[in-house]
Amino acid sequence: MFEIIKRDGLARIGRFETRSGVLETPALLPVVNPKIFTVTPRELYDEFGFRALITNSYIIKNNPALKERALNEGLHKMLDFEGVIMTDSGTFQSHMYGEVEVTNEEMVQFQKDIGTDIGTVLDIFTEPYWTKEETAASIEVTLERMQQACDMKGEMMINGVVQGSVYPDLREDCARRMAVMDIDVHPIGGVVPLMEQYRYSELVDVIIASKKGLNPNRPVHLFGAGHPMVLALATLLGCDLFDSASYAKFARDDRMMFIDGTYRLGDMQSLDCNCPACRGHTLETLKKLPKDDRTRLLARHNLYQITQELALIRRYIREGRLWELVEIRCRGHPALLDALRRLKTHTEFLERTEPISRDGALFYTGSESRARPPFHRYAERLMTRYVPSASKAAVFPDGGKPYSRAYADEFDKARRAGYVPVVVSPFGPVPAELDEIYPLAQSLFPENTDAETVSATDEMTFNFLEKMGFEEVIEYEEIPDNGEQGYDADLIRARAISNYQFGIEATDAMFRGEIEIVKSRKTGKIRNVISDGEHILSLRAGDGLYTLKPAGALRILEKVPAPFMRVAVNDDSVPFVSNGRNAFCQFVLEMDKEIRPMEEVIVVDKDDRFLATGRALLVENEVRSLKKGIAVKVRSGNGDEA
Amino acid sequence: MFEIIKRDGLARIGRFETRSGVLETPALLPVVNPKIFTVTPRELYDEFGFRALITNSYIIKNNPALKERALNEGLHKMLDFEGVIMTDSGTFQSHMYGEVEVTNEEMVQFQKDIGTDIGTVLDIFTEPYWTKEETAASIEVTLERMQQACDMKGEMMINGVVQGSVYPDLREDCARRMAVMDIDVHPIGGVVPLMEQYRYSELVDVIIASKKGLNPNRPVHLFGAGHPMVLALATLLGCDLFDSASYAKFARDDRMMFIDGTYRLGDMQSLDCNCPACRGHTLETLKKLPKDDRTRLLARHNLYQITQELALIRRYIREGRLWELVEIRCRGHPALLDALRRLKTHTEFLERTEPISRDGALFYTGSESRARPPFHRYAERLMTRYVPSASKAAVFPDGGKPYSRAYADEFDKARRAGYVPVVVSPFGPVPAELDEIYPLAQSLFPENTDAETVSATDEMTFNFLEKMGFEEVIEYEEIPDNGEQGYDADLIRARAISNYQFGIEATDAMFRGEIEIVKSRKTGKIRNVISDGEHILSLRAGDGLYTLKPAGALRILEKVPAPFMRVAVNDDSVPFVSNGRNAFCQFVLEMDKEIRPMEEVIVVDKDDRFLATGRALLVENEVRSLKKGIAVKVRSGNGDEA
Repeated sequence: MFEIIKRDGLARIGRFETRSGVLETPALLPVVNPKIFTVTPRELYDEFGFRALITNSYIIKNNPALKERALNEGLHKMLDFEGVIMTDSGTFQSHMYGEVEVTNEEMVQFQKDIGTDIGTVLDIFTEPYWTKEETAASIEVTLERMQQACDMKGEMMINGVVQGSVYPDLREDCARRMAVMDIDVHPIGGVVPLMEQYRYSELVDVIIASKKGLNPNRPVHLFGAGHPMVLALATLLGCDLFDSASYAKFARDDRMMFIDGTYRLGDMQSLDCNCPACRGHTLETLKKLPKDDRTRLLARHNLYQITQELALIRRYIREGRLWELVEIRCRGHPALLDALRRLKTHTEFLERTEPISRDGALFYTGSESRARPPFHRYAERLMTRYVPSASKAAVFPDGGKPYSRAYADEFDKARRAGYVPVVVSPFGPVPAELDEIYPLAQSLFPENTDAETVSATDEMTFNFLEKMGFEEVIEYEEIPDNGEQGYDADLIRARAISNYQFGIEATDAMFRGEIEIVKSRKTGKIRNVISDGEHILSLRAGDGLYTLKPAGALRILEKVPAPFMRVAVNDDSVPFVSNGRNAFCQFVLEMDKEIRPMEEVIVVDKDDRFLATGRALLVENEVRSLKKGIAVKVRSGNGDEA
Repeated sequence: MFEIIKRDGLARIGRFETRSGVLETPALLPVVNPKIFTVTPRELYDEFGFRALITNSYIIKNNPALKERALNEGLHKMLDFEGVIMTDSGTFQSHMYGEVEVTNEEMVQFQKDIGTDIGTVLDIFTEPYWTKEETAASIEVTLERMQQACDMKGEMMINGVVQGSVYPDLREDCARRMAVMDIDVHPIGGVVPLMEQYRYSELVDVIIASKKGLNPNRPVHLFGAGHPMVLALATLLGCDLFDSASYAKFARDDRMMFIDGTYRLGDMQSLDCNCPACRGHTLETLKKLPKDDRTRLLARHNLYQITQELALIRRYIREGRLWELVEIRCRGHPALLDALRRLKTHTEFLERTEPISRDGALFYTGSESRARPPFHRYAERLMTRYVPSASKAAVFPDGGKPYSRAYADEFDKARRAGYVPVVVSPFGPVPAELDEIYPLAQSLFPENTDAETVSATDEMTFNFLEKMGFEEVIEYEEIPDNGEQGYDADLIRARAISNYQFGIEATDAMFRGEIEIVKSRKTGKIRNVISDGEHILSLRAGDGLYTLKPAGALRILEKVPAPFMRVAVNDDSVPFVSNGRNAFCQFVLEMDKEIRPMEEVIVVDKDDRFLATGRALLVENEVRSLKKGIAVKVRSGNGDEA
């Protein structure tokens, strides 16, 4: 059972329940060689806090002494590890050595017999150099074996390994066909060669294709990903589990992992590491250690690098800022920067799980920041939901902080002249009425925007204005102040934000009769929107977006047909949700597929009757597949009114 | 006495000798409040390895009990600290509270009396909002007090604080006037408000202006810079010392420093920190600690963040890669990205200390990477030292890895047709004969270069070709293969590299008579250049640049007048250098000001007679002012021949 505790786009902090305890994700599973413990499983558990590990059932099965012990004692006792034990099946050995002399049936049965918590099908490793035909044919075999493994698994959980080489359509198809099987965890397999060859941008394509096909209710494991430098990126793309054999393999080879790469002890000029394993050592004392002690120390160093990066990743997910950490990590190697740039081609998919807003500022880290999903969404909604309040536009230069109110007077002058003031920004064109919404006002970018960025966005802005059908477009300097009045800047803003956030149809439903805009005395900013005497919307100061009030929700229900903005819950939930309790996944009947995380939603009963307003924590396919967790954080039910 | 052990541009790992021991720089000095030890000086020394601290002589002087103890016991005993003790003089208090009731004379005397290792003049804190006139006038007072302090200092070392608010010319002038005084350390003062207000790009201007005026033989201290996020940038600009009061101040305020910012305990959603102070704690257990214990723990956490970043900075300096760490760190906050972009305006100054090559690849981290000094130098030398081997150019597109030999055949075709093949790269135009020199072949950049970068460099390339006076420029596709022969690609390459590295005059001096190019049988690359039977140059595989042989050096001495490429040493050094020993700073009489770090040089005696060839480790003003350290790593003396 997998539950999403906190999400940041596709990235998630989850709780994965197994018979050997709960595993908090994202998590890395150290690979333990059953023949030699570089670091003992007991230490992994006690010292490093690892709650899961991987070992290889194929190696155990082929070693008579180990096989005997594993069958007699069970894996947990044999390894002295009380956490979750995952086993690999020999597939990687087939990749390394061409062939293994076992059947899928034997391997699944053996894994069951030795008490593995999560076993693995004997899938076929699809090499990056394979043709599409070879790959497709091998996937059919993997899927047959997968079905066999599902039928046999019993109490053991099973890994359903997504294969497909570098062919995104095959990956997605394989994932989709596994999604309907009785599988517990989805490793993405066959990616080690891509990582070894620094083909990170292809890795991005592979992960995203797999994610598209999979169900969100199962953890996704990126098989073989254990270097700290790649963990943030993979987590951003929705990978929950990782594993590392390198921590020990590199250590035996006198290599140290750091967040920015791997260094050979012989090439290093000083130690300069503060981790608990290295403390008290210099490069010289380290080199003088007996080989076994040194290997142990380096393995522990490597594990500390991993746990430190995972801790950081968790922090950034909790803060909703993982994308920023990824942008920084991807600067660490040009091949990773390539991967970062490849994300651009997947923006549409990534936008679907991107929260509608977040706390705190969004940091611009370089020109690549412009490809982030919130900015894509902004451009998208502008083109489809923005209704200009005039047929003419005045373009204002990028003043470094275009969303500040510094231009307020100039904007007013433009409006008096019958123009819509539009600001050029690194993220595209911004009509003045939208200048305080997330992510625009909440983005921090350098004052000295580079020339290329500005010229690119200039062009973008003019193209946009043309597309929007503005009859006349002038530059800021030329605005004639004709002193006209009669426009209502607050109403223009209030409607524009509602159009942007809820769409034109819902806005038309809500804004009717006489509109009263209540402003904060202190800040002069819009607080509430009252329509025909009813409080329909409140504007949040933090993200410049609305909180939907019950009166507004009722108008939408009346005018806009389901499932728009709805989350329908079953009868059992009705009394709870009506009283302001949260709506849980397992009780949701139907949900609008267009709802994004943190978006305002209307919770209704099965007959589309209003129950409550709230904010969605998950998107439709997540709610549909997850058996646990909050779908909607309910704000106000109709309980008070009942 | 200050010695440079290892340099990376202006950044340096140094050894600073004081009467309380040697301080390895870059170093941060924790500020110890003499009234309350959040972390004891003993712990700072033993647990964290700090070999220097700062305390405030003004506070001690104003507290009768402390004053009494300090005068009786001396500072070292009073604080129980055997390392270097620096004291501040009350200037910061005057910034905070407007005025202090002491004189410079009193403060300098008091600092001497209590046994400070490095005392500080009572300078005048120049506020960023001051007019230029106010600032200039206050500097005169500071300089007078400085002279008084120098006259009084005796055995105590003295801090000469560079002031000048945000006026670079005043900063530089103040620094220049202090450079001739008997000062031991140069803090850059008055910068705390800039850092508090995130005005990092102005901080860049201030530091560089100060560095321009100062002598390289004294450590530079950035007063008040203690947040780990700014240390890499400040070190890159040549700051050696830092101090932090924040580690304790923030701790008392329940704030934790991280490399990416400072977080309030109350805002944090989880601890996610692996430092030795935090290990074993969760956010909850930390919050439940008694206030004093928590403050102590947070202070230790903050110190660990600092020491970890300093360790990383040292590693990057040793690897010659500090610029890359800075580029990554500056992505952590848009105001720091601003600072990174400001470096562009100082490229010419930064280029003067930029090594001629380095080991390992140069990583492109984003469009800002194009502003690095090695690329500026490349463009510069191309314009002044490149002599095209034909009057026509064929422009090749950026193939992702333009410096590889993948294009070799096409290049050959272009040459047969009488064209110089030129490759468009993210770093500018590259004639094929230079495609293997540092930094071009040694740079790793993403394959998917963004559209803006390519279009910008395309333009750059065509402008360049126009400036270079190429009569005809065509695109790669259009090259007519007229089958002409008769050119010697190896000789063209050999000369072009020599022109680039040593200039046209020296190349003409070396390349005379019959030229034989010896190539590696294995790689097919140029190894040696023989001219008229003499071995004049060897090409290094690593950076694609030459090692100068004695025969080549003699030809340069003969034809190109001093001081070109020369380092002249005194008579005492002659026998040593002739026998291949290194040339030390204190024995250098004169040195070519145009020599860059790691450049090939010719060591001569006072009469310009050849002694040896070697590589410069330092530049002229460093050699002139430093009293210790290797100026030239000598390779081959004339000893064998003698």
